[in-house]
Amino acid sequence: MNAADQFNLDYGRDKRQGIGEAIFCAQKSVAQINAALEMVVARRHPMLLTHLNVDSHAELTADLRDMLDYDPVSRTAFLRFDTECDEPVRDMVAVVAAGTSDAGPAMEAVRTLNFNGVDPTVIFDVGVAGLWRLLDRVDDLSRHPIIIAVAGMDAALPTVVGGLVPGAVIAVPTSTGYGAARGGDTALHACLSSCASGVVVCNIDNGYGAACAALRILKASRQIPS
Amino acid sequence: MNAADQFNLDYGRDKRQGIGEAIFCAQKSVAQINAALEMVVARRHPMLLTHLNVDSHAELTADLRDMLDYDPVSRTAFLRFDTECDEPVRDMVAVVAAGTSDAGPAMEAVRTLNFNGVDPTVIFDVGVAGLWRLLDRVDDLSRHPIIIAVAGMDAALPTVVGGLVPGAVIAVPTSTGYGAARGGDTALHACLSSCASGVVVCNIDNGYGAACAALRILKASRQIPS
Amino acid sequence: MNAADQFNLDYGRDKRQGIGEAIFCAQKSVAQINAALEMVVARRHPMLLTHLNVDSHAELTADLRDMLDYDPVSRTAFLRFDTECDEPVRDMVAVVAAGTSDAGPAMEAVRTLNFNGVDPTVIFDVGVAGLWRLLDRVDDLSRHPIIIAVAGMDAALPTVVGGLVPGAVIAVPTSTGYGAARGGDTALHACLSSCASGVVVCNIDNGYGAACAALRILKASRQIPS
Amino acid sequence: MNAADQFNLDYGRDKRQGIGEAIFCAQKSVAQINAALEMVVARRHPMLLTHLNVDSHAELTADLRDMLDYDPVSRTAFLRFDTECDEPVRDMVAVVAAGTSDAGPAMEAVRTLNFNGVDPTVIFDVGVAGLWRLLDRVDDLSRHPIIIAVAGMDAALPTVVGGLVPGAVIAVPTSTGYGAARGGDTALHACLSSCASGVVVCNIDNGYGAACAALRILKASRQIPS
Amino acid sequence: MNAADQFNLDYGRDKRQGIGEAIFCAQKSVAQINAALEMVVARRHPMLLTHLNVDSHAELTADLRDMLDYDPVSRTAFLRFDTECDEPVRDMVAVVAAGTSDAGPAMEAVRTLNFNGVDPTVIFDVGVAGLWRLLDRVDDLSRHPIIIAVAGMDAALPTVVGGLVPGAVIAVPTSTGYGAARGGDTALHACLSSCASGVVVCNIDNGYGAACAALRILKASRQIPS
Amino acid sequence: MNAADQFNLDYGRDKRQGIGEAIFCAQKSVAQINAALEMVVARRHPMLLTHLNVDSHAELTADLRDMLDYDPVSRTAFLRFDTECDEPVRDMVAVVAAGTSDAGPAMEAVRTLNFNGVDPTVIFDVGVAGLWRLLDRVDDLSRHPIIIAVAGMDAALPTVVGGLVPGAVIAVPTSTGYGAARGGDTALHACLSSCASGVVVCNIDNGYGAACAALRILKASRQIPS
Amino acid sequence: MNAADQFNLDYGRDKRQGIGEAIFCAQKSVAQINAALEMVVARRHPMLLTHLNVDSHAELTADLRDMLDYDPVSRTAFLRFDTECDEPVRDMVAVVAAGTSDAGPAMEAVRTLNFNGVDPTVIFDVGVAGLWRLLDRVDDLSRHPIIIAVAGMDAALPTVVGGLVPGAVIAVPTSTGYGAARGGDTALHACLSSCASGVVVCNIDNGYGAACAALRILKASRQIPS
Amino acid sequence: MNAADQFNLDYGRDKRQGIGEAIFCAQKSVAQINAALEMVVARRHPMLLTHLNVDSHAELTADLRDMLDYDPVSRTAFLRFDTECDEPVRDMVAVVAAGTSDAGPAMEAVRTLNFNGVDPTVIFDVGVAGLWRLLDRVDDLSRHPIIIAVAGMDAALPTVVGGLVPGAVIAVPTSTGYGAARGGDTALHACLSSCASGVVVCNIDNGYGAACAALRILKASRQIPS
Repeated sequence: MNAADQFNLDYGRDKRQGIGEAIFCAQKSVAQINAALEMVVARRHPMLLTHLNVDSHAELTADLRDMLDYDPVSRTAFLRFDTECDEPVRDMVAVVAAGTSDAGPAMEAVRTLNFNGVDPTVIFDVGVAGLWRLLDRVDDLSRHPIIIAVAGMDAALPTVVGGLVPGAVIAVPTSTGYGAARGGDTALHACLSSCASGVVVCNIDNGYGAACAALRILKASRQIPS
Repeated sequence: MNAADQFNLDYGRDKRQGIGEAIFCAQKSVAQINAALEMVVARRHPMLLTHLNVDSHAELTADLRDMLDYDPVSRTAFLRFDTECDEPVRDMVAVVAAGTSDAGPAMEAVRTLNFNGVDPTVIFDVGVAGLWRLLDRVDDLSRHPIIIAVAGMDAALPTVVGGLVPGAVIAVPTSTGYGAARGGDTALHACLSSCASGVVVCNIDNGYGAACAALRILKASRQIPS
Repeated sequence: MNAADQFNLDYGRDKRQGIGEAIFCAQKSVAQINAALEMVVARRHPMLLTHLNVDSHAELTADLRDMLDYDPVSRTAFLRFDTECDEPVRDMVAVVAAGTSDAGPAMEAVRTLNFNGVDPTVIFDVGVAGLWRLLDRVDDLSRHPIIIAVAGMDAALPTVVGGLVPGAVIAVPTSTGYGAARGGDTALHACLSSCASGVVVCNIDNGYGAACAALRILKASRQIPS
Repeated sequence: MNAADQFNLDYGRDKRQGIGEAIFCAQKSVAQINAALEMVVARRHPMLLTHLNVDSHAELTADLRDMLDYDPVSRTAFLRFDTECDEPVRDMVAVVAAGTSDAGPAMEAVRTLNFNGVDPTVIFDVGVAGLWRLLDRVDDLSRHPIIIAVAGMDAALPTVVGGLVPGAVIAVPTSTGYGAARGGDTALHACLSSCASGVVVCNIDNGYGAACAALRILKASRQIPS
Repeated sequence: MNAADQFNLDYGRDKRQGIGEAIFCAQKSVAQINAALEMVVARRHPMLLTHLNVDSHAELTADLRDMLDYDPVSRTAFLRFDTECDEPVRDMVAVVAAGTSDAGPAMEAVRTLNFNGVDPTVIFDVGVAGLWRLLDRVDDLSRHPIIIAVAGMDAALPTVVGGLVPGAVIAVPTSTGYGAARGGDTALHACLSSCASGVVVCNIDNGYGAACAALRILKASRQIPS
Repeated sequence: MNAADQFNLDYGRDKRQGIGEAIFCAQKSVAQINAALEMVVARRHPMLLTHLNVDSHAELTADLRDMLDYDPVSRTAFLRFDTECDEPVRDMVAVVAAGTSDAGPAMEAVRTLNFNGVDPTVIFDVGVAGLWRLLDRVDDLSRHPIIIAVAGMDAALPTVVGGLVPGAVIAVPTSTGYGAARGGDTALHACLSSCASGVVVCNIDNGYGAACAALRILKASRQIPS
Repeated sequence: MNAADQFNLDYGRDKRQGIGEAIFCAQKSVAQINAALEMVVARRHPMLLTHLNVDSHAELTADLRDMLDYDPVSRTAFLRFDTECDEPVRDMVAVVAAGTSDAGPAMEAVRTLNFNGVDPTVIFDVGVAGLWRLLDRVDDLSRHPIIIAVAGMDAALPTVVGGLVPGAVIAVPTSTGYGAARGGDTALHACLSSCASGVVVCNIDNGYGAACAALRILKASRQIPS
Repeated sequence: MNAADQFNLDYGRDKRQGIGEAIFCAQKSVAQINAALEMVVARRHPMLLTHLNVDSHAELTADLRDMLDYDPVSRTAFLRFDTECDEPVRDMVAVVAAGTSDAGPAMEAVRTLNFNGVDPTVIFDVGVAGLWRLLDRVDDLSRHPIIIAVAGMDAALPTVVGGLVPGAVIAVPTSTGYGAARGGDTALHACLSSCASGVVVCNIDNGYGAACAALRILKASRQIPS
């Protein structure tokens, strides 16, 4: 069975759900990723690649690799064909990260939003162990209807943010930390047990999913009379 | 230290976040719950009580208990003083439950929405092992900008719903099942690992949290230009 | 083997470590607890009983039970013979609890300190989901060299306190919550992964241990030149 | 003790159980694998090698390696001596995989069936987040008495398949995913908690075991009067 | 919402999959079970009830309870209307249990098979710590195309059976044991890690699921040319 | 977003809490560490680097690397500008390690104390399986008001020390061991369940945190009247 | 199937292994226990009953119950017919328990030894947090070739004993403790990770198994030339 | 602190416990291992090295490495100075391994026994999925007073052996397997839950510990009158 036959790509997803087609590269072979790229290039269909690590990126067929806009921090790549874009949506989504070590998932959220036409406000290193850093930014945050809060270790940030702002709060627990941080499990379960009401949670390090949730809310809000 | 001194109630939350004050009764003594009720009754401040089991409810001071609208399935009680309410918000939120055994958390979501002025569409027993039951309702579901999907065991429902509708999907994994269901852990981790993009997740059996998230999104949508 | 032969009580501990003898009653039979009480009563030796639940307390030999000062919230009992006490130590230890549901372990810490001659400052229901409640008390807290921070669910309180005050911070994670709170495991691992440096941690719900740690520090401080 | 003395090969298994002899190479040294190959080559006895990774394969004695039909995707190798085979059994087993990332275990099942004279129908990338992909193939699947359903992450595929078809459904949870997918644990426990009745489960990534179960059922069916 | 509206019963399942409709009673209220019974009684549709514990059974509406054939060991009840049955299928399925403590799940499998027209051979207390007990029965077991092996603690029975017989082997790990048996988790993971090839596994204590799998195989075998 | 914008360094921490600024390097890129170093070098602000492994250290910009005092055992580096230091504090803190394999976390504690002006007494390889090694040092240990006890595997050392000395005991469980040691989880949970009262616990391998706790106690003791 | 048919008792075990027949009552119904007792009474065959809790004991058929020598602390009962016993074996086995809360499993070991003709030395409440209690007994312990060490929480006792005595050391971790003690898991894994070489371990609370292991060693020693 | 100061070697252990000094190399640096070797070489004291992997062995100081008898399968090395040994003890201990993949821990047990003067009978690849392989050896095994049973995956071997032979049975669960084998956890917990009475258990892959336990029993047996 060749690699192309192992795919069943979804070219209608953008229409149907307002989120562009994406492939998760982490457990795919370079042959599989090349095959997927060839299929979408042939149709000039845009695609987002996530979990594309530096080594896999380097091993892609050179012609295909040259067509990609790759970012190693977030391990994402854009394949895009339209040279003209709509004006990006601003001031709707803020991405807040507790620590510098959370840059990977936070930038994955930022890049996924960018790929789908949204330009978020980005705030880094405002973890609650140094509370004044966050308090300085609360007014700014409160102006955004949707906030993606990215934090590892004890992941107290989404709870504190959820108590301070009225908007939708999407928590992204990260795998930052060691020992009792349990690869992000502690952050995950802390977010799920948040004493701030109505904070919702994505998988560990899943900046992509948080961005998609924000896109769903932006789309849904058009159905909601204000 | 008397029970009243153990509380620091938040009378401004409805203003600040659009979600009425609520107390979680599961690990509070009857004396503590009575004390909280007395404080809010004195101010004629409405309050939602969650995780109030049948035995605790029965042991409350009779005068206070008589003021409560109690529902044993969801283990919630309303304390309300306004006899006239605004017309409830309809067609914005759907609550979908996979099985009859998921009634408790599903009804907790419904009741929390009701308490806060939202009347959701409710659909029960549409688990994906009998797929036609869900497919019959997809068009109806798609009309709602926000869907709360409640499911235990393998919790496949939120994934299937997330793939079929464009709106915001909030998953509530439940503790339904036994053995490998691990008290809801399997449902929780399955929802977090959903292959449908942008599904967000609440704690196990946390219908209350899902409803609050829906309220946050409804409030946030007013800030989003359509 | 009779119950008394199953004990090897430590009458010298107060001298040696500055912490009075205590017994953990949770997995002992009423016969064993009675036997221990008889031995210490015979010597007029004071003793603290922890994890003595209401039912076991009620089943103790009446004469012994009448000698106890019992508190059902903390499940502790004092057996004391000295009618005159030293003036208690004040302003050295603060016990801060995130929620009303954390009253049991918080009061266990308070009572253990009381039994050993320390009268702590007690502050309840200042969880970080309503941050202003804690910020109002920061100056007061900062005046105490030792702070015991008691919190369940996501247990963000010890981290926020640890970032705001310079003193010794002893975290007591509690079993408050459900689902992803995992009976206190999440709170425990969150405290251990705290991004505030130098916060130390006790077992879940172990207010007794936190108080003993505070007593050790108070004793140790006499050896430290100021 | 030399490597050959560490083996006790089972040359009668094909006769006894209808499944050819196989060795699991993952935790064996290259010296051990070489020794096993030498023994079976000497008797011209066929053997299937599983979990033979690319590096170990490359380090085998060249003469032995040249006798193997190796597939890196499934990490399986065939050692066969009969040039003429029986006509393979068709239309009895279908192997369905949820995603492209599940190719490894799915192909391990396919190859194990091939080695034992069965040629399965193979369908890839029909995960339930894009439900129409599966619905398109339901009639085809229903014609097969045995279905092996391979899926990772939330592993909803076996449940949906189990609800749609009447045949025997063998689930192979895979380690695809990250974070809450817990290396396949979530998929495993989701399959075991399936709300579709009578779905049976193999170990994580165990395509080999699923194929053996299918072979057992094919053999057993000869004892069942139709 | 009344209890009947919480159900979506499946009257066509017997036709579609050869397994009669069943409801899982463990997490349903007595009101819900009564409602389901009333619906099927009105249609004279047979139904199997599983996980119906003695207390819930006793609390059912008397008229409905009198129509049930209830077995407390397996916690199953039959609601049947046909006084004449087909001759049951014999010699096709054997149910083997390692210990007397495994009687509950083993009898659940037996009763589910009985309800669906299959009369299995039943063998109890043949755990492998006293191996001769099993060896005495191997010839008898080998005559059955399908074997359900029920075992707790270390669950070695399915592995030993799987090595001795050629038929389909369905393992039911049980929650028998304590401590390291982890409520059946150890048995479950031992069965999944069985060194006998092609043993498939059901959830802990899931005799019902094993019986359904046997029914699927019996049905599937009609599609397989012998 | 450049690497420097991902930081929000805390130059006032030494003043506020008596603990110098430190960065956790484990999940930061070399670019991020370089950026942080450049910022503090520009201000001539001292900084401690923890979890800086040998490879990352080697890849730092050469000019910056040359300014660091690096220790590979503890994976710590000092950036300091003051050539004259205060006389270090002696005899206040002892660091005791159970085994030679615990050298990494033990030396992390020692180095963190050194960086902050404290020179601890260091005792290695006194695990309780050879009890006389510890008993020989008890008198010496008892003279120290604060003891950091570092141990892996079954981590019995902190309990035995806690029973023998009256001072503050801070346990550092380590990841030493294999299998049932579970990467330090067993040591961690053993320390938390210590039958010696008032032993407090840090994260697995967290020598840094234990040192910070000791610094907090030293600072706090100045507020405690002796 | 009646209860007697669910048993396959082993009347030859004493001959074969030197350990009398025993049944584990925890997950058996009263009907099953009665049936087993009737069978052995009919043959006048002795039997040990373990995990027979007070309620089940009270519900047994009165005639059978009267024949039992029952001990509620260890939850064991003896059924014996020989009025004359051999002189019990003394000074060969010591049972040492860390705390009074460990009485149940410790007495289960003692009673199992008694039932099989061994009279162990018993020492209680010598946990290592008060080390002198154990050191006082080391010479006595060293005289015994086999030591059963029973301990919960952090279970440091078996390690310390294993380092002090040369004999066979069998650890019985117990479920004493709470929170991080994890129902005995921490004690179990601590014993398995013991830094004392050659300490072997039984299941949590399994005093019965430890006694059987001691009996095996006593029997085996007859085969070993001294 | 230099590497030699990090050791506190135990030169009296052989005298005290009949087990030669050994060091666990897994989490020690090459510098530490070299330092330990130099110390014992200086005293001409024999030493066993365990968990010495091939890379660390290769990096040792050449002079020291040349003095070692190294075995890569068991990762053990002997440092011995006596050219004449006592006649080894035979027929007392058997080491039985379920699979070829268990060679590492099995050979660690064999080598540890060899180092301490015992020459065990060794039997490989007799896992119970092919039961006749074990039954062929039962008479031989029964002649040995002590049996070390080594098995991974579902680890059924120790249970079956424990039921067949009367001697002391020491189980060594191994990390062989994948997925549900959980790195040896399943084997470990299966051994601890063995339905064969009196089987004792060592840590995962701990052949060294099992051998030490056998040495303890051999030594203890001299104190037991036969």
